[in-house]
Amino acid sequence: MAAFGWIDEQAELRRRAGLVRTLKPRPADSPLLDLASNDYLGLARHPEVTEGAARAARTWGGGSTGSRLVTGTTELHGELERELAGFCGFEAALVFSSGYAANLAAVTALAPHGSLIVSDSGNHASLIDGCRLARGTTQVVAHADPDAVRKALHTHDGPAVAVSDTVFSVDGDAAPLAELAAACREHGAGLVVDDAHGLGVLGDGGRGAPQASGLAGAEDVVVTLTLSKSLGSQGGAVLGPARVIGHLVNAARTFIFDTGLAPAAAGAALAALRLLRREPERAARARAVADELYTRLTAVGLTAVRPDAAVVSVRAPSPEGAVRWAADCRAAGLAVGCFRPPSVPDGVSRLRLTARADLSGEQLERAVRVIGETRP
Amino acid sequence: MAAFGWIDEQAELRRRAGLVRTLKPRPADSPLLDLASNDYLGLARHPEVTEGAARAARTWGGGSTGSRLVTGTTELHGELERELAGFCGFEAALVFSSGYAANLAAVTALAPHGSLIVSDSGNHASLIDGCRLARGTTQVVAHADPDAVRKALHTHDGPAVAVSDTVFSVDGDAAPLAELAAACREHGAGLVVDDAHGLGVLGDGGRGAPQASGLAGAEDVVVTLTLSKSLGSQGGAVLGPARVIGHLVNAARTFIFDTGLAPAAAGAALAALRLLRREPERAARARAVADELYTRLTAVGLTAVRPDAAVVSVRAPSPEGAVRWAADCRAAGLAVGCFRPPSVPDGVSRLRLTARADLSGEQLERAVRVIGETRP
Ligand SMILES: Cc1ncc(COP(=O)(O)O)c(C=O)c1O
Ligand SMILES: Cc1ncc(COP(=O)(O)O)c(C=O)c1O
Repeated sequence: MAAFGWIDEQAELRRRAGLVRTLKPRPADSPLLDLASNDYLGLARHPEVTEGAARAARTWGGGSTGSRLVTGTTELHGELERELAGFCGFEAALVFSSGYAANLAAVTALAPHGSLIVSDSGNHASLIDGCRLARGTTQVVAHADPDAVRKALHTHDGPAVAVSDTVFSVDGDAAPLAELAAACREHGAGLVVDDAHGLGVLGDGGRGAPQASGLAGAEDVVVTLTLSKSLGSQGGAVLGPARVIGHLVNAARTFIFDTGLAPAAAGAALAALRLLRREPERAARARAVADELYTRLTAVGLTAVRPDAAVVSVRAPSPEGAVRWAADCRAAGLAVGCFRPPSVPDGVSRLRLTARADLSGEQLERAVRVIGETRP
Repeated sequence: MAAFGWIDEQAELRRRAGLVRTLKPRPADSPLLDLASNDYLGLARHPEVTEGAARAARTWGGGSTGSRLVTGTTELHGELERELAGFCGFEAALVFSSGYAANLAAVTALAPHGSLIVSDSGNHASLIDGCRLARGTTQVVAHADPDAVRKALHTHDGPAVAVSDTVFSVDGDAAPLAELAAACREHGAGLVVDDAHGLGVLGDGGRGAPQASGLAGAEDVVVTLTLSKSLGSQGGAVLGPARVIGHLVNAARTFIFDTGLAPAAAGAALAALRLLRREPERAARARAVADELYTRLTAVGLTAVRPDAAVVSVRAPSPEGAVRWAADCRAAGLAVGCFRPPSVPDGVSRLRLTARADLSGEQLERAVRVIGETRP
């Protein structure tokens, strides 16, 4: 058989199951109302953010030119790291080229040979890949279940970490962070939480889920972030005690062997962070829009998960139903996310809506009307 | 023991071995002569490239706002993909948030359960992590040895790929691509090559090592790239037959579950690519500077590897010697890379110098003088 011939068989199976994914490039001035992106605070197109990117590119160049350990660390990276750590209340921060890379780094570097990783069954793909790359042993536990974490930790002697999203990306439900931290403390284990969907939305003025749960600055808690959602840019970060950050600099392969974050991305994220500091009400507004969306959708009889942050998950009757629903929304001018197998672990297809702080009342109303009218 | 307490022991061991790595943030107007970055064509600070970044941020936003499969694909991404594929002579291309992510994607998606991956022992960390994440079985073979690849493939029935850097990042030596392709063809295996250090330097006008070896457009060859070296930006890409690219869209986790590349990075890379098309002599110039550097360094009695691209590797007597040498260069105004264990698989420490197309004769002379005068 020719090399890569086996791909055609898989493609054919996908086609028959109606599961082929294709790319739909959007124009710069898309007429669609966006309830699909993760631009929770509406900052990706904010002039201060895009100017932050433009200025950084002009000042520092189009790329960082090397690994952060060689030529890839600029003073701009340092500034972003100090301000991120300060904002979220942690001792130190380290910036990566993506949130995905930050998660691979945190999990692999904090789970050495002989250690145990206790991983929530609903965790993001990047945390799962981190577990698979790590030298430690992974035990997957029931979703959002501190007792399951406690039990798993109880079986192990030696270094251990529990790993969880703070807000789960599919359903938008929050992890019981305080209880998870308590379970970890009983066993001297570390807690690594991915605040991709919490930063900018939860906590005081968007300081994130760990801050909201009283865990900011805790010496046994490590937070991973992405700069690509509320901060409207690209990149990721790990926050934690200085000893952990120093360890990552020396041990995390996706830090050492990856080119540093592009200056434009660092500049955009820094501008967004400063804007959020100045306008802390954006965080509360994103939450309020999500609540409103949930209330109105359930009022018209749809089944949705009560949002803990800015993601609203609406149940669809079937994978095909979900795909058709999303396509019908699109035809009616509304972009929504659509999750179906194999992206959803439980096999339940759903529309994934994201609330944005800058959605107007009129836009919200239109979104709810379209979703209701197109329901399968 | 407190959570993360074990880190302190490792840090202490590192300190005693003199292997602590620290970040040295550089200012925007660093006075150092740069022979350490991977900015081979000197394009990262080129005004067309930085304006490409700035314009893209203004037009498209600070971030792409979502997965490429949701809101993260813009027409700009499509444009970059078409031009990258066209330039390097492949049917299709797919852009990622980093070269690291592109490598994880290519290796994991092309090595399913039951398949064999034959991996060169000198491969980059990101390819190695791809092998570790893949469901297939990995066999590591001797460096740059087509016969070893042939033998490994011979033991296996079913889908198989050989995986190699085109230019190895530590020593700058080239892989025997044509011979590797021949070995793969004998067994119906695919060949996946990482052209991170070949693009912009090797091939006609910088079209890369696969083009230089007559492999452009081959249906059994897949190329991964980074936008962060010769193209002066950030991001990665996979090039290959349309069937392979379509498969990655549907199967590669670092594509599906990662935010799309920031518009500024796509814009900078596109501007650099167009510049390279217009000024193809930059590629030859980078190679000539590397040759010149090698000739002059060996003329003063240093041991170096004859460069196949733009990386010149100079042997150091010991890890401590290498570190001191690099520091002395720095003190004399010259930035050079320094590789030592555990980053070098063979335990041999070296200075890693990168030639840039825009180095002047005077700068070259100064670099050689400083390196010679500071030798341990
Ligand atoms: C929970 C979670 N973690 C990590 C990531 C990866 O972050 P990034 O897209 O910035 O690489 C995402 C989404 O992309 C996510 O939803
Ligand atoms: C051979 C090789 N492949 C892949 C990468 C990763 O690319 P990036 O830094 O763009 O993520 C690098 C260096 O960083 C490299 O040297």
